[in-house]
Amino acid sequence: MSDISGEESGAAGGISGRGADTQDSRFAASMAYFERAAKVIPGGIYGSKSPGFLVPGHFPYYLSRARGSRIYDADGNEFIDYLCGYGSQIVGYGNPAVDGPALEQARKGDLLNQPHPVMVELAERLVGLVNDMDWAVFVKNGTDATTLATSIARADTRKQVIISAEGAYHGAANWCSTNVFPVFMQAEQRDVRFFPYNDIQALEALFAANRGNIACIILTPYHHPTYKPQQLPTPEFLTAVERLCRAESAYFIMDDIRANFRLDVHGSHTFFGAHPDLITMGKALANGYPISVLLGTDGLRKTASSFFITGTYWMSAVPMIAAMATLDEMERMGGTAQLARHGRMLKDGLESLGREAGFRARVSGPLAIPYMTFDEDPDLYLNQRFCAAMADRGVFMHPHHNWFISLAHTEEDIARTLEAARSAFEELRLFSSSERF
Amino acid sequence: MSDISGEESGAAGGISGRGADTQDSRFAASMAYFERAAKVIPGGIYGSKSPGFLVPGHFPYYLSRARGSRIYDADGNEFIDYLCGYGSQIVGYGNPAVDGPALEQARKGDLLNQPHPVMVELAERLVGLVNDMDWAVFVKNGTDATTLATSIARADTRKQVIISAEGAYHGAANWCSTNVFPVFMQAEQRDVRFFPYNDIQALEALFAANRGNIACIILTPYHHPTYKPQQLPTPEFLTAVERLCRAESAYFIMDDIRANFRLDVHGSHTFFGAHPDLITMGKALANGYPISVLLGTDGLRKTASSFFITGTYWMSAVPMIAAMATLDEMERMGGTAQLARHGRMLKDGLESLGREAGFRARVSGPLAIPYMTFDEDPDLYLNQRFCAAMADRGVFMHPHHNWFISLAHTEEDIARTLEAARSAFEELRLFSSSERF
Repeated sequence: MSDISGEESGAAGGISGRGADTQDSRFAASMAYFERAAKVIPGGIYGSKSPGFLVPGHFPYYLSRARGSRIYDADGNEFIDYLCGYGSQIVGYGNPAVDGPALEQARKGDLLNQPHPVMVELAERLVGLVNDMDWAVFVKNGTDATTLATSIARADTRKQVIISAEGAYHGAANWCSTNVFPVFMQAEQRDVRFFPYNDIQALEALFAANRGNIACIILTPYHHPTYKPQQLPTPEFLTAVERLCRAESAYFIMDDIRANFRLDVHGSHTFFGAHPDLITMGKALANGYPISVLLGTDGLRKTASSFFITGTYWMSAVPMIAAMATLDEMERMGGTAQLARHGRMLKDGLESLGREAGFRARVSGPLAIPYMTFDEDPDLYLNQRFCAAMADRGVFMHPHHNWFISLAHTEEDIARTLEAARSAFEELRLFSSSERF
Repeated sequence: MSDISGEESGAAGGISGRGADTQDSRFAASMAYFERAAKVIPGGIYGSKSPGFLVPGHFPYYLSRARGSRIYDADGNEFIDYLCGYGSQIVGYGNPAVDGPALEQARKGDLLNQPHPVMVELAERLVGLVNDMDWAVFVKNGTDATTLATSIARADTRKQVIISAEGAYHGAANWCSTNVFPVFMQAEQRDVRFFPYNDIQALEALFAANRGNIACIILTPYHHPTYKPQQLPTPEFLTAVERLCRAESAYFIMDDIRANFRLDVHGSHTFFGAHPDLITMGKALANGYPISVLLGTDGLRKTASSFFITGTYWMSAVPMIAAMATLDEMERMGGTAQLARHGRMLKDGLESLGREAGFRARVSGPLAIPYMTFDEDPDLYLNQRFCAAMADRGVFMHPHHNWFISLAHTEEDIARTLEAARSAFEELRLFSSSERF
């Protein structure tokens, strides 16, 4: 292990060449690693973890460890974390009730030639838990699950068109990513059609224009576009989706990867009263251990069986053991009721503190998965300033991506967060009155 | 953890309804789990782990643990393992030199909001180790890496056609799988063209027919089709590939996921004298911890930077720590020289024992990644009988997929394997003379 020095220390050396002010030297190790990274990794850090997706200078580039609701960066700075490993952590980082049995199995054997018996037990448990679903298939990435879901729908219907909401995120594969090289999207997204979320009229028009060719519609249980307020579905919208699917003999896929069990332990479709044919889950399913699942109804079992569904890492035992333990621990720690209660405290507190400072700050989305924007600031400049000010005060809130409450967040964490928010809003008020407005 | 009973025991109950002979009762727990699985998982077990891909009745369906070169099934049966978690294990199951630091990091934090510093160190190490490569991008599945490689080649060249060898395996995505529902392959594989491996004339014809439209050729370092003997590349073939790519301004992608560092610690392209522009690695990279990598040359760095490359689980720290430790431990345990030496013992022993029993058994492929077929038996019936007989004697050799030597295989393991093979060939000889020939 002689090569691994990546812990919090000055080992990475000081920064150079860019005027090390107080803020920069707080992230000296992060910056030094990033300079090395730029030589051997395209962009240094890529995708949703790119520094530019946060606010450079105020957020760490590299994290070294985590515990409960806290993360620690390469320089040793501590943050109360509201990103939760992009939603993958729900019962707290390093929760021994999950890591205990998971790491015990890791020592016995993780990836073997054949599945571990726990695969059967986890499938039974999820089929029993998630309403209306009859079977389960385990994969690795969330994108593996959404791609498999749409592929099964297309194979079963022998139709090609996929309908998806504008700005929805169903993974980073070419067919669903809206961020790849343009030359590509033309070919790979040829059969994907987009409509504005919750817009029944636009959806009806899309179904009419593609009649006879639609394999499926894929929707997140509520809309969580990047850079924008979140939107809950109207009941009329979900009813319309189901009516249109029936008339077209198209399948309704609910991509529940991001919310997973945060809204309802029987699945987000139950929370919103929807009736999908296929459901994808992942992220918090195993508290960060890598596993995703596609759940389906009996009508699609035969087509699913006919697929060659495989990946070397897909049947590893450890994430399955972790998923079983996570479900137990979620309930023990207070479940969805506690997430909603703490989410309510955070939402009400932030909106009220915003008002006091003269801002129309609005927390959108479900209580357990909030995101704050400023009504007077559609370009997110105030978001960036606010989240930077929160990061300066030791709270990790993403300016461009929704947040997550975990069961490790205590009332005291929320109170400390609101205390930091009071001061951050005040900084924002002084800044706005002097510079911007 | 009350729901997890999946250890080796009679807990799963006896089998029912299918004449429990001695062989069946050896796998009573496996069979009982499989009956439960059939209700909640399409096909019970899917993909390359399906029972039908092995020899039903002679192989376990579920494995519970592993150690060194040994695997243990749900009934407690022990096997010397030559599949190595489909090649993902190289320094032995449960090797403490890897699991020690990896699980220490797991307790500190695995999947965080931002990468761990070890990502930089691993990228530096791989760029230093793998010849001719200038940058690295970490993903999860091997298929993530091959899909990204072809996508980058297509985006960079603004051309669409991918050339691939017939029967080659580059993952289970729709674009590269030859096993998905036919209605699909037409659309998703529209731009993929196939030629017979090592056939220069056919390749030249394919390049001529698609002139101006070819983005890349993707090849494994040697040919390892399922159900068939393996083929090493001729030097003329690799020279022709490079000449044709240069003339077409197409990229040469080497998919080194299966061989990884088993042939050469600088990459299989070095072993065979090839000069690819992009290399994918995975499987044994972290001894079974889930991680894959795409390595590339400077000419493609800018295009790679422009891609939205992301996955929630892709920057987890534990597999990166495990990869660093695996590289250290490989060298300590004897490296590629030991793999080749033990592979030579196995190959020579099996071929000689086969001849003694009157068979033309032939071990093809590189010494460290062998596969045995019978020249007189192209339909693999003898393969199935032989591997079933080996499994009956406690040796796990796949009848339809290549095998893997790991550094945990000792000379004594090989000797015990050959002892079992002598007896298995004898059983095959008696069977063949009485029933089949």
